[in-house]
Amino acid sequence: MTKDIITRYKDVRQATLEFCKPLHIEDFSIQVVQFASPAKWHLAHTTWFFETFILKKYVTDYKEFDSNFNFLFNSYYNGVGDRILQNNRGNMSRPSTDKVFEYRNYVDTKLLEFLVDVSDENIIKLIILGLQHEQQHQELLMTDVKYMFGHNPILPVYQDNFNKVNDTNTTTNSIKVTSGLYKIGHQAPDFCYDNELGVHQVYVDDFEIHNHLVTNGEYIEFMESGGYSNFNFWLDDGWSWVNSNKITAPMYWHKIDGEWQYYTLSGLKKVNKDAIVAHINFYEASAYAEWKAMRLPTEFEWEIAAQHLDWGKRWEWTNSAYLPYPNFETENGAVGEYNGKFMSNRMVLRGASVATSKNHSRSTYRNFFNPTERWQFTGIRLVK
Amino acid sequence: MTKDIITRYKDVRQATLEFCKPLHIEDFSIQVVQFASPAKWHLAHTTWFFETFILKKYVTDYKEFDSNFNFLFNSYYNGVGDRILQNNRGNMSRPSTDKVFEYRNYVDTKLLEFLVDVSDENIIKLIILGLQHEQQHQELLMTDVKYMFGHNPILPVYQDNFNKVNDTNTTTNSIKVTSGLYKIGHQAPDFCYDNELGVHQVYVDDFEIHNHLVTNGEYIEFMESGGYSNFNFWLDDGWSWVNSNKITAPMYWHKIDGEWQYYTLSGLKKVNKDAIVAHINFYEASAYAEWKAMRLPTEFEWEIAAQHLDWGKRWEWTNSAYLPYPNFETENGAVGEYNGKFMSNRMVLRGASVATSKNHSRSTYRNFFNPTERWQFTGIRLVK
Amino acid sequence: MTKDIITRYKDVRQATLEFCKPLHIEDFSIQVVQFASPAKWHLAHTTWFFETFILKKYVTDYKEFDSNFNFLFNSYYNGVGDRILQNNRGNMSRPSTDKVFEYRNYVDTKLLEFLVDVSDENIIKLIILGLQHEQQHQELLMTDVKYMFGHNPILPVYQDNFNKVNDTNTTTNSIKVTSGLYKIGHQAPDFCYDNELGVHQVYVDDFEIHNHLVTNGEYIEFMESGGYSNFNFWLDDGWSWVNSNKITAPMYWHKIDGEWQYYTLSGLKKVNKDAIVAHINFYEASAYAEWKAMRLPTEFEWEIAAQHLDWGKRWEWTNSAYLPYPNFETENGAVGEYNGKFMSNRMVLRGASVATSKNHSRSTYRNFFNPTERWQFTGIRLVK
Amino acid sequence: MTKDIITRYKDVRQATLEFCKPLHIEDFSIQVVQFASPAKWHLAHTTWFFETFILKKYVTDYKEFDSNFNFLFNSYYNGVGDRILQNNRGNMSRPSTDKVFEYRNYVDTKLLEFLVDVSDENIIKLIILGLQHEQQHQELLMTDVKYMFGHNPILPVYQDNFNKVNDTNTTTNSIKVTSGLYKIGHQAPDFCYDNELGVHQVYVDDFEIHNHLVTNGEYIEFMESGGYSNFNFWLDDGWSWVNSNKITAPMYWHKIDGEWQYYTLSGLKKVNKDAIVAHINFYEASAYAEWKAMRLPTEFEWEIAAQHLDWGKRWEWTNSAYLPYPNFETENGAVGEYNGKFMSNRMVLRGASVATSKNHSRSTYRNFFNPTERWQFTGIRLVK
Repeated sequence: MTKDIITRYKDVRQATLEFCKPLHIEDFSIQVVQFASPAKWHLAHTTWFFETFILKKYVTDYKEFDSNFNFLFNSYYNGVGDRILQNNRGNMSRPSTDKVFEYRNYVDTKLLEFLVDVSDENIIKLIILGLQHEQQHQELLMTDVKYMFGHNPILPVYQDNFNKVNDTNTTTNSIKVTSGLYKIGHQAPDFCYDNELGVHQVYVDDFEIHNHLVTNGEYIEFMESGGYSNFNFWLDDGWSWVNSNKITAPMYWHKIDGEWQYYTLSGLKKVNKDAIVAHINFYEASAYAEWKAMRLPTEFEWEIAAQHLDWGKRWEWTNSAYLPYPNFETENGAVGEYNGKFMSNRMVLRGASVATSKNHSRSTYRNFFNPTERWQFTGIRLVK
Repeated sequence: MTKDIITRYKDVRQATLEFCKPLHIEDFSIQVVQFASPAKWHLAHTTWFFETFILKKYVTDYKEFDSNFNFLFNSYYNGVGDRILQNNRGNMSRPSTDKVFEYRNYVDTKLLEFLVDVSDENIIKLIILGLQHEQQHQELLMTDVKYMFGHNPILPVYQDNFNKVNDTNTTTNSIKVTSGLYKIGHQAPDFCYDNELGVHQVYVDDFEIHNHLVTNGEYIEFMESGGYSNFNFWLDDGWSWVNSNKITAPMYWHKIDGEWQYYTLSGLKKVNKDAIVAHINFYEASAYAEWKAMRLPTEFEWEIAAQHLDWGKRWEWTNSAYLPYPNFETENGAVGEYNGKFMSNRMVLRGASVATSKNHSRSTYRNFFNPTERWQFTGIRLVK
Repeated sequence: MTKDIITRYKDVRQATLEFCKPLHIEDFSIQVVQFASPAKWHLAHTTWFFETFILKKYVTDYKEFDSNFNFLFNSYYNGVGDRILQNNRGNMSRPSTDKVFEYRNYVDTKLLEFLVDVSDENIIKLIILGLQHEQQHQELLMTDVKYMFGHNPILPVYQDNFNKVNDTNTTTNSIKVTSGLYKIGHQAPDFCYDNELGVHQVYVDDFEIHNHLVTNGEYIEFMESGGYSNFNFWLDDGWSWVNSNKITAPMYWHKIDGEWQYYTLSGLKKVNKDAIVAHINFYEASAYAEWKAMRLPTEFEWEIAAQHLDWGKRWEWTNSAYLPYPNFETENGAVGEYNGKFMSNRMVLRGASVATSKNHSRSTYRNFFNPTERWQFTGIRLVK
Repeated sequence: MTKDIITRYKDVRQATLEFCKPLHIEDFSIQVVQFASPAKWHLAHTTWFFETFILKKYVTDYKEFDSNFNFLFNSYYNGVGDRILQNNRGNMSRPSTDKVFEYRNYVDTKLLEFLVDVSDENIIKLIILGLQHEQQHQELLMTDVKYMFGHNPILPVYQDNFNKVNDTNTTTNSIKVTSGLYKIGHQAPDFCYDNELGVHQVYVDDFEIHNHLVTNGEYIEFMESGGYSNFNFWLDDGWSWVNSNKITAPMYWHKIDGEWQYYTLSGLKKVNKDAIVAHINFYEASAYAEWKAMRLPTEFEWEIAAQHLDWGKRWEWTNSAYLPYPNFETENGAVGEYNGKFMSNRMVLRGASVATSKNHSRSTYRNFFNPTERWQFTGIRLVK
């Protein structure tokens, strides 16, 4: 088992570095907006997790890499000391990017040495949690870099032909599910987050769910029929958001010479009408559904139908608020600050996106974001 | 039936006026904070409802009282024209209070004349909706006046011995409910809001719910044990709220000479430790529950247990987000803007409060507020 | 002399009440914007001055009217205790307007009793200061009421045919002044503020100053020639102000059916092109001058030329910052907080306006406001 | 003459690069606060000046380095096209630092080629203006880097033993000046900014001006005697600033283990009580003077006494607002946007600081900043 863990540890850690290769040193320190952290911060923070929860706790005579780093690269774990405010993360040109790569090396070396003889299940569970955590940050790293470049007036190219995937629907059918009691929550013995636990029954009525997501072409119809200027389609908070931000299209869309284009990590591209729409927030998803006289699925409907659905290219907004399952319990200590404390004002997204790390998706996974947020690869699935 | 409606119309309209009697003219126009409207605005807005949705639509040759009033006293109904921004409602010394009372008289007279011969079920339904609407505003009127006086440095008395009720728990027991499928939603033929409709089944696990609410004395224990300064008890958004607002006690509480007092509409009083705590928001309710190692009920648990519970003195925060029931449909037209569009970022409260109008409560009623709000008479019920 | 003082006291105090006669009770408590205080506050604050600086100090056994009033109606005198924040003045429906009138009567009665036997020069100076202070508040009272009504969507009429004056220029000539040393500052023995004292010499070059102010018609030319959209005319801070507030005309102007109208205390009127423009701020005055390839006078040029000028209908923006004269000394104690502490970030205005109280103007008077402010009756005089 | 210009051009351009040598690549792109620009921006913007106003205008067939740069590196010159907002300058990781150095090289090469044959006085004047401009940015570069490092939690060292100067007063005497008419403004034929021109006479009264600046030790006395908590010493706007920002010491000061230390570009150092205080704003300078029962000089007093004064280590706050001299005229076109448009809401500073570039100071130089700003090396000189 440990050998397997070691391989996985190396793979996940390496994947983070792979993504960074096309970046310039300047790209690592910038923070354009509060919710998007600098690349350097992701690199250090994921490392800090292993240093703090494993090396410092379990390795005798472990010598901390730098005593400032706990303060600098703690994200929101109040339990392990002071931390800098989230919107100051981009003010730090130092520690330098080199120093942060050194930090990764240092911690990797120490951890791999330590892992050789580890058999304690609790430690292995923490390693796995740390790797899952790093995979989450890999996705954020990609979306945060996209945000930074996509808001730079010169729209830099991260990499030509990056992440080419088939972004179109494979079917046009729907799945019918009959009413009844269904089991919800993670039941397999493998890893999941605490917020997926607490298997419980949920009663759902009959529903019919699309086996395809809304495309750019369909979304343009919504836009062209005045979707963004008719309050009837919008939740009240969504209508305020549209108006105070003067929103008229998904994030990263630009109308250039009468034609819709969007920024991608490979630069500006014409909008492909057959591709699945991305970078819309919950309010836009909800308004689109209203305009179609349909609705978004609940997270339970989604999970029940998941095995029959084509999913994995977009995080799909559900109409479920992010709340605890019955019998939800947070883990003890700082690692328990992971999920539970965000259980207000967020909506659940199900599925996975083109930016999600390999082996980091499952049908019980509960992603969650504020309803205003658009910088993830988010999409819309409809239910009748 | 119409006779009954007429009586009810008179009673409800009169109840609004009764509450206003102790007010001075100056008290009618002030808006201290965006969410609390001036008394004058409540008086006019509830009247505007009857004028707009009934008199203007169904009374031939009806002569509008004042053409400005649609703009001034429309609250948030985008469907019926422009409206002033909510935070400008308190900038208006004119129309004067007298003018607004005149408006009420005018509309009442016209409406009562008209009602004599009405048998159309749709109109009667609109009248009832208008009365329910007015009753909601009666509660807001009371809480808004309390907010205004409670934030005036001289803490004026609205009325001595106002609204004396027994504010203490009557029992200390708990109710056990066994797991199973339960029907949720309004089933009787009488009035309810659209958000209560769509009777549907919900599966709940076993639970045990307190038949009493948290008291001031218990809440003081939470405060004195450092409840407001230990992040472990708080949702992340709640912790930000506590810190950015430097909250250390429920709204209206003042520590004077080492002793807790609170502002009531009868002036400043010593905190009664046996009385049920009020004026706490969802974050505080949630933190208190966490501190007690218990939790808040879901709105379904609450509704299932309601017939066995002592309720009605406080709006009780549930841990359910305000979302549509399955098959929820908004009414057509402007009256349909009533409930559905608020279905994001709000939490459901169940029960009723000491400020709730008579005959305006039922066990299926879904009240909803932002999790930050405290100016309603809100309380905490716990579940194991 | 005291008799004269008594008459003056009665006259000035009465003038405040005269202005209030057309107001409704609701009009006394509203605060629409931080810089404009409620009428009730002006009534009480001017009274508080006499109570605090005279009655409480010099009248044995004087019984304070209400101990809360020092806190409620102190404006910015840090030396005499806590005060409510300026932007909370409008949150107070209580004390009621009646109570404030009672306060005025009480203080007037006590003061007039006391004045009979007063001969102490220091007390008489304080009385005079208090009356000058009240006269300043009379002007603010009028402009604050105008602001409140002018921002009410129904634009109420304060009084028909109010304050009819000839608002046009009487000449079109200019005054030439030759270079040299001139004496600046108040030299007569009668009352002036501390900021006018310290007579000193100032050297000015030759200048030629208009004996007329810019008219509405001339200002419309500036507007129509793109004055508000050409950055070349604007100070940098002014350009930011124009753009962030989307300014396109003076305050109170509305383009209705293609025609400029403005709100006056007698209601909405067509803009009279021959009348002198009002309600423009320093940035607008400065931009207009730049557009005309002229400039605003310094406060010294203005004072030197004043005896030859037709002035008194508008406060005229000068291009002088409000700074101390050489040898400026503030008075001791709280009354010394009157002027000196505002000597940064304000520009000097000279002259007087249609809203200025009788006998409250002189050629050495230094009025001062932030360069952004427009709610006073401000105008533009040009210099070559 | 052109040879001399070429040498000067090379020297000034090189000095900018010298300062950058100790910086890491990460340090070039960060913007911590709106008023402090990233180093990369300074490097490019000073280069943009030469490209825009000389190469593009006078060099036939000049090929622009990159057409985006006009937008990216224009500071506030509205006359030459769109520009990015000042507070977005730090969002740009690209163009990379290397690219910006390449830009400098490119422009330098083209300009030096061009300069060989230039004799046109207007072009030479523009070159000199460009070099003066670059010298101003050299000072900002240093103070902006200090701000960035001084607000990084790990307080990085820019360079050990950087810029060691004798920071103490050399005398303790005062200079007496007798009243009379004095000439103000730049009279020599060499370079000055437009705001120094318009030699004119100013009458001043007798005054006595310190030939030394306030020291850290003296400033600590002010602090320890409650200077920051006694409103009597403060201008009203200053008092608001102190309270809303909770200011208790100059910028960069930290009380560590009971001892005052300050951040310098060589790291944290003990406060030297004999050194001249720095990093205080106008309000603090004014409050200190008030506490001492003295005052700040006007800019005229300063200029008149300058030849007898020891100056040049600090920018010295005067009590003069930044306003035009009589007959002030801005230059035509975009270079005329340099000074005039800032003539509101700023105070004049005279002298020069330890960060001022060599040969970039003269007794008629008028520096200006908002009264709140502290990140320059500012000091206090007193007058009786």
